[in-house]
Amino acid sequence: MLPSRSGINVVYSSVNLPQLHSPYLICGFPGSGYVGKLAVDHLIHELDAKHLADIYSTSFPPQVVIRADGIAELMKNSIFYSNGAASDTNLLILTGDSQPATPESEYLLAEEILDIAAKFDAQKIFTLAAYVTGVFVDKPRIFGTATDADIIKSFHEQNISTMDGGSITGMNGLIIGIAKLRGMNGTCLLGETSGYVVDAKASKAILESLLSIVGITIDMTNLEKRAKDTEMLIQTVEQQVSGRVLESQQPTTPGKTATNTGYIS
Amino acid sequence: MLPSRSGINVVYSSVNLPQLHSPYLICGFPGSGYVGKLAVDHLIHELDAKHLADIYSTSFPPQVVIRADGIAELMKNSIFYSNGAASDTNLLILTGDSQPATPESEYLLAEEILDIAAKFDAQKIFTLAAYVTGVFVDKPRIFGTATDADIIKSFHEQNISTMDGGSITGMNGLIIGIAKLRGMNGTCLLGETSGYVVDAKASKAILESLLSIVGITIDMTNLEKRAKDTEMLIQTVEQQVSGRVLESQQPTTPGKTATNTGYIS
Amino acid sequence: MLPSRSGINVVYSSVNLPQLHSPYLICGFPGSGYVGKLAVDHLIHELDAKHLADIYSTSFPPQVVIRADGIAELMKNSIFYSNGAASDTNLLILTGDSQPATPESEYLLAEEILDIAAKFDAQKIFTLAAYVTGVFVDKPRIFGTATDADIIKSFHEQNISTMDGGSITGMNGLIIGIAKLRGMNGTCLLGETSGYVVDAKASKAILESLLSIVGITIDMTNLEKRAKDTEMLIQTVEQQVSGRVLESQQPTTPGKTATNTGYIS
Amino acid sequence: MLPSRSGINVVYSSVNLPQLHSPYLICGFPGSGYVGKLAVDHLIHELDAKHLADIYSTSFPPQVVIRADGIAELMKNSIFYSNGAASDTNLLILTGDSQPATPESEYLLAEEILDIAAKFDAQKIFTLAAYVTGVFVDKPRIFGTATDADIIKSFHEQNISTMDGGSITGMNGLIIGIAKLRGMNGTCLLGETSGYVVDAKASKAILESLLSIVGITIDMTNLEKRAKDTEMLIQTVEQQVSGRVLESQQPTTPGKTATNTGYIS
Repeated sequence: MLPSRSGINVVYSSVNLPQLHSPYLICGFPGSGYVGKLAVDHLIHELDAKHLADIYSTSFPPQVVIRADGIAELMKNSIFYSNGAASDTNLLILTGDSQPATPESEYLLAEEILDIAAKFDAQKIFTLAAYVTGVFVDKPRIFGTATDADIIKSFHEQNISTMDGGSITGMNGLIIGIAKLRGMNGTCLLGETSGYVVDAKASKAILESLLSIVGITIDMTNLEKRAKDTEMLIQTVEQQVSGRVLESQQPTTPGKTATNTGYIS
Repeated sequence: MLPSRSGINVVYSSVNLPQLHSPYLICGFPGSGYVGKLAVDHLIHELDAKHLADIYSTSFPPQVVIRADGIAELMKNSIFYSNGAASDTNLLILTGDSQPATPESEYLLAEEILDIAAKFDAQKIFTLAAYVTGVFVDKPRIFGTATDADIIKSFHEQNISTMDGGSITGMNGLIIGIAKLRGMNGTCLLGETSGYVVDAKASKAILESLLSIVGITIDMTNLEKRAKDTEMLIQTVEQQVSGRVLESQQPTTPGKTATNTGYIS
Repeated sequence: MLPSRSGINVVYSSVNLPQLHSPYLICGFPGSGYVGKLAVDHLIHELDAKHLADIYSTSFPPQVVIRADGIAELMKNSIFYSNGAASDTNLLILTGDSQPATPESEYLLAEEILDIAAKFDAQKIFTLAAYVTGVFVDKPRIFGTATDADIIKSFHEQNISTMDGGSITGMNGLIIGIAKLRGMNGTCLLGETSGYVVDAKASKAILESLLSIVGITIDMTNLEKRAKDTEMLIQTVEQQVSGRVLESQQPTTPGKTATNTGYIS
Repeated sequence: MLPSRSGINVVYSSVNLPQLHSPYLICGFPGSGYVGKLAVDHLIHELDAKHLADIYSTSFPPQVVIRADGIAELMKNSIFYSNGAASDTNLLILTGDSQPATPESEYLLAEEILDIAAKFDAQKIFTLAAYVTGVFVDKPRIFGTATDADIIKSFHEQNISTMDGGSITGMNGLIIGIAKLRGMNGTCLLGETSGYVVDAKASKAILESLLSIVGITIDMTNLEKRAKDTEMLIQTVEQQVSGRVLESQQPTTPGKTATNTGYIS
C-alpha cells in the first residue's frame, strides 16, 4: 500500500464529506514563530471545528511523536471544518506538526491541500505567517500580500500594510502562488513579531485581521490571556537583553505601503 | 528490469508462501547500538526460523559487502518465519544490514515491510530499539510506547516503563506509526543502554520482555553468555573512563511512567 | 492536480499557438552575472515579443516573490515569441527568475524547454552565458562552443573565439547538449566579463554577436546606455580595488582559438 | 521527450543490433585512479571494438564537456562490442565520463547496464577496480571477489588474491551484486595501486589477469609503454616525498587469501 506518486496520503475521518458552501481555506503552518499556528489552533477551538482529514507525507520527519499518555503517532497535517455554528461563513482550517523537509515536497503538499480545498469549491485561500523584525512591539502591525489587485485594494480599509518587495518562502508562499494558477485567489497575512519568543500577541492581531475579512466573531479571551502572558515574557526578555524596557516603535499609518525591511518566514 | 516505483525489490526464497496463523511481526533493525538486532538474531537462531524473503532497495548504501569466503553480496534486509516449532505462536522476524539512507526511503521501506506482513494477516507489530542514556546500568529497564491505549495499559504488568514524551526516529518509529494507519497495532520496546558499547545485556532484557508478551520460551544461554561478556566489557570501559566502577543507577519502580530523559534511536 | 512526472507545469497564454517558421530558440537564464538575461530582456523589449507560456517547476525555489504593487507570484521561467515584426527571422526567447535547484531537475527542465521548441520545429538553439575572468576589459570578447562542426567553422567570420576545452555547467550547457540528441543543433555564446558586476557591456557584445548570426537588427540604445553605466561602475570598482585604473588587456586576434583560461558559468 | 522513469536514456548507434554469442560484459568506470578505465580503453583500441550505444542519465553531472575542436557533448557512458576479430570470445565493453551523482542513481544505472547485457544473453560480468594502498609497488597484485563460489575457487590458478572482508562501493560493486540477483555471475578484479598517480602499471596487470580468464590475447605494447612511463613517474614522486626510493613490498604468495588492509574504490 504505497502512498500516491507524490508520497502523500490523505485519510478522511468519514466516507461522507460535509456540505460546505464556498468555504474559505485558512492555513496556519508550524514554524514562523508559531504566529499562524497559535491563531488557527484558537480558531479551531472556539468554533468547535470538526476534524475532516489527516495528511501524511513521506516528506515529514520520519518519526513518531509520543504523547503524554504514551501513545505514538506519525507526523501529520490536519484539516478541520466549520459550517454554520458561529456564522454563515464556512471554513476549512489547516494546521499540523511539520512542514515538508524538501523544497519539491513543499510544492507537492501545497498541490494536495488545494486539491482538498477544490473538492469543496473553496475560492479564497489565506495563509498566516510571521513578519520577523528582531524588535519587540506593543501593537503588532499586520502586513499583507495577495494574488489579485482587488484584494490588495482592500488592505487599506482593513488596516493591513501592503508589502512592496521581498519574498515569502515555504508553504505560506507556495499555497497562495499555486492557488493563483488554479483560478483561486490567495492572501498571506503576516503578523509583526520579534522572532525571539512564541508571540501570542502577534497571533491575536493576525486573527483579528482575518476574522474581520471573513466576517466571523469569536471569543478572544483565551488568546488575549495568552497575549498578556506573552507581553510579560517579552518584557522579561527585554530586561535581560538590555537592562531597560525598549521604547515601542511608532506605528506606521495603517494602509500605507510598508517598505520591506523585515524578515518573512 | 527496474525496481518498483519505490526502488524496493522483494525476493522470496520460494514461490510457495508458508501458512502462518496471525503471526506477530518482530523487527530488529541495525543501528541503535544493535540492541534490537542482537535480540532478533538470537531469536532467529534459537527458533531455527526459516528464510522467507530478502528485501533490496536503492536506498541502501550502494555497495557489496565481501564475506570471509570472498563472496560479494548487496546490502539487504531479510525476513524469517517461525510457525510452530517452539510454540503455537507464529512469528515473522525482520533484520538486516542497513536502514535506508533518506527519510523518504524510510517511509517507503516501512510500507513495503507492512505489505509483506499484511499478506500473512499479521496484526501485531513490534519494533525493538535502544533507549540511550550515556550511563552504564546493572539491570537495563525496558521502556515502551504503542499505537493503542490497550497496549499501554498492559505495560505495567509486563514491567515496561511507559514513555510520556519525546520521539522515536527512523524505522523503529515509522513501522508502528504506519501500522496504525493500516488498522494494525504497533509496540516499540526500548532497552536501556549506555550507547557506548554493543550491549548484549540490554538485548537480553528486551528479548525477555518481548517473549513474555508473545508467549514464547527459548534458551537464553548464548545471549546470557554474551550478556556476561558485555558486562565485563562495560566494567573495563568504565575503569578506563573514570578510574573506578560507576555506581549502578537505582531502578525506577516498574510500571511507573518514566519521564523522557534519555535518547531514543 | 499534480504537476507532470517531471514536476514541471507549462501554462500557455492562449489555447491557440502562434504560427512560427523555423524559429531560433534563444535562452538567457538568470545567473552567470546576468550577462545572458540582460541581453534577452533587451531583445524581448525591442522586438515587442509576445508572451507564449510560463513554466513552473517543483525545482524552483519554493517561494512567492512580491512585486512593487504587492502582488505575489511563484518563481517561473517564461517564453516569448517574435514572428515578423522586425525581420523575417522568427524567435522563441526564454528567460526567467531561476535555474532549477538540483542537477536532475536541470536535465528535466532542459527536456521540457526543448519539447516546447520542437512544437514549433525550432532547429537552432542558442544559450547565452558568461565567460568569467576576474578581470575588467574594455572590449569583451565573445567565446563559443557548439554541437556541430559546421557551426564551429562559422565562428571565425563572426569574430567568435572557439573554446578548446573546459565545460559549461547548468542550463546553458544542458540545453545544447540535449538539443544535439534530438537532432537539433546548439550554440553557446559566452561574453567575457569580470564576474564582479552586472555587466551590461558584456550583454551588449553577446547580443550583437547573436543578432549578427540570426540576421536581426534592433535599437541598442538602451543597452548601450546601460553599457556606459556599467563602464563607469567598473572604473569605480577598479579604483576602489587598486587605487589606479587597470590597463586594458590586449585583445586576442578575432577568430583564433582561445585557450581555456577563464571560468564559464 | 522525457527520459525513462529512471532518468536514463540509451541511444544505440544503429537500429540493427549486432549478433553476439555469450558475450562477457567488461566494465571500466572512471574514478578509482582510472585503473579500470585505462585498461578498457586499451582493450577497445586493440580489439577495434565497435560502438554499440551511449547512455545518458539525469544523474551525470549537469554539464557539457568541450573537446579540443570546440564541440560540446553531454556526459555519458558508452558501450562497445567485439565479436570475433581477435578471438572467438565476444565482449561487451563499457566505459564513460562519469559515475552517477547519487546512490539511488547508481542502482538504477547498474540495472540499465545489465538490461543491455541481458539483451545479448551475457552471463558473466566483470568490473575492474582499484585496490588503493597508499604505497608504490613494483609488481601490482590483483585481488578479487565474486558472486559465486566456483569463481572464487578459480582465483588461485589465476594468481588472484581472494578478498576476505571489506566492501566495494559504487558501480564496481553494484553491477556484480545486482547481476547475481538476475541469475548472472559477477567478478570484480582490483589492481593494487598507490592511489597517488594514474597508474598504467596497475591497469596492465589487471588487464592481463582479465584476458587470461576470458581467453583473449592482445598487443600490450602501448599499455606497457604507458606502464613504464608510470614507473618513472612513481620513482619521481617517491624521491620528492622521501628523498629516497622506497623499498618494494615483498609480494604475497599468489592465491593465498589477502587480508583486507587496503582501500577499495
